[in-house]
Amino acid sequence: MIALTERGAAHWLRERDNFLFLTHVRPDGDTLGSAEALCLALRKLGKTAWLQHNPEVAERERAFLSLPWAPEGYVPEHVVSVDVSDENRICRGAEQYQGRVELCIDHHGSNTRTSRYLCLNADAAAVGEMVFRILTILGVMDGEIARALYIAVSTDCGCFAYSNTSPETHRIAAALMAQGDFAKAINKRFFQTNSRMELLLQSRLMASMEFLLDGQAALASITLADKAELGALDSDCDGLASFASTIEGVRCAVFLRELDDGVVKASVRCDPDWINASDLCAHFGGGGHAAAAGCSFPQGVTIAEARETMRAALLAEKG
Amino acid sequence: MIALTERGAAHWLRERDNFLFLTHVRPDGDTLGSAEALCLALRKLGKTAWLQHNPEVAERERAFLSLPWAPEGYVPEHVVSVDVSDENRICRGAEQYQGRVELCIDHHGSNTRTSRYLCLNADAAAVGEMVFRILTILGVMDGEIARALYIAVSTDCGCFAYSNTSPETHRIAAALMAQGDFAKAINKRFFQTNSRMELLLQSRLMASMEFLLDGQAALASITLADKAELGALDSDCDGLASFASTIEGVRCAVFLRELDDGVVKASVRCDPDWINASDLCAHFGGGGHAAAAGCSFPQGVTIAEARETMRAALLAEKG
Repeated sequence: MIALTERGAAHWLRERDNFLFLTHVRPDGDTLGSAEALCLALRKLGKTAWLQHNPEVAERERAFLSLPWAPEGYVPEHVVSVDVSDENRICRGAEQYQGRVELCIDHHGSNTRTSRYLCLNADAAAVGEMVFRILTILGVMDGEIARALYIAVSTDCGCFAYSNTSPETHRIAAALMAQGDFAKAINKRFFQTNSRMELLLQSRLMASMEFLLDGQAALASITLADKAELGALDSDCDGLASFASTIEGVRCAVFLRELDDGVVKASVRCDPDWINASDLCAHFGGGGHAAAAGCSFPQGVTIAEARETMRAALLAEKG
Repeated sequence: MIALTERGAAHWLRERDNFLFLTHVRPDGDTLGSAEALCLALRKLGKTAWLQHNPEVAERERAFLSLPWAPEGYVPEHVVSVDVSDENRICRGAEQYQGRVELCIDHHGSNTRTSRYLCLNADAAAVGEMVFRILTILGVMDGEIARALYIAVSTDCGCFAYSNTSPETHRIAAALMAQGDFAKAINKRFFQTNSRMELLLQSRLMASMEFLLDGQAALASITLADKAELGALDSDCDGLASFASTIEGVRCAVFLRELDDGVVKASVRCDPDWINASDLCAHFGGGGHAAAAGCSFPQGVTIAEARETMRAALLAEKG
């Protein structure tokens, strides 16, 4: 593996032609926006560049990106992955490129370092920041490239609220916004719009919530009946444990749900200085990290029983 | 009234001493953070400066700002208001300064222009942006001033998501964050924490919500019984109309609530290209703007009746 700086990656791209860019499974704004920006920029330099088709792009990314998918039969000379920490995470339908990535541009410290060339910057809030600097070195930028990079950067830093946001993130946002009037519409769609199903599930969750230990612990559940009534899939519930943990004063949130086979699963989010989520879940055969862990109860345990068990465990720990 | 540029305001402040800074009623991060930053900066220049006590500061602003309140009996030479568009909006307990504001620093286009000197920049996303430039001209900045200005700027632009956010807003955020490691904690408390009461009310709202016209219109209500059961004040409901309008696909949100005297009030938020909120409310003796309006029903009209009336009005308009 040969490590490249961002400057090195710029030169590497400038010296080559006929690129294919790969994005990751369950693609987010950063992998798609960064890959698209590279593709558009290299075309402006007169090169041939395409994105490998990713079948899982969500509606809002499709609405705000042009996503130049490679035509059938395109044979690239150089395969470049973008925001892909592990070649097993290359998007569905592109399995033939596993083990064939020539350059990987990434910001995950956990990168598996299997590509021939690797441009890795774990301090970047988004790969979009790295691509911004690479394109600055190449001297290519325009409104469409800036729009793609704004999506990449803003989504990966939670609209500048996550702890990965640095002064450099803001400097790059300023430079991108100076290229065109795209930020208002992107911010409205990505950061000021709530999905109806998400809100309906959050509403059920709040209605079921009890607060323990002076409001520092919260216990809530979603039943199969809730999901059936709302038409919710189990995957729609994925964000609910984190949601519960954002409530003012809550240091430990326990979210219970009935899976489709009736098994009850608990997801726990904690302030590790107060309760260790992994230790709590270990009592019930589960595990995870100090801040986020989970466990499943044996088939036959009802959600009311599981809830009582978790309540007792919290009170035993801190009551 | 004498208009001052930001440079003019900097010189005005440099030539004077013994300041009192006034903030507005129901104070937000911008009025408090900007006033505090000015106060701290003028002290660094060897001057005497205080903030007029504002009795309505919320817990999170108290936690993140030092708020140097003037001691009892302090007699200022120069009274400066910050983010106050109208002297009637000066904070409670400072009524003696109405009509006595010498310099007003503000970013509301609607400013009533009654102060002797006025430094107004309606393009600024926050007064904090103006104060940043004023302090840059004065050559004063440090970590505590930057923290106050970061609160001012980030809260008034919704953590860089509102449409008032400009490239300059991001450039200023970058410069402020370079002064100290405060943004992570501020972002977590201000933008990633939800109030329990707000979420409980949102939950009730969602449970009462019906969608009309292919999901483009939403109708929801909060009753006196809901508020009593949750222990909510009427002011806790203020954000619910806007909340309803953030739901994916919703172009007109009607939020009905029973006020403490039993009168039913409707708050309407619309995409003005679809329905004009002001016109809709005018049918019922109300009014406002094309995007946000309201009306109250006569005493005796029940919330169910008001809801049926608004439902019929929506269907008549677009059904």
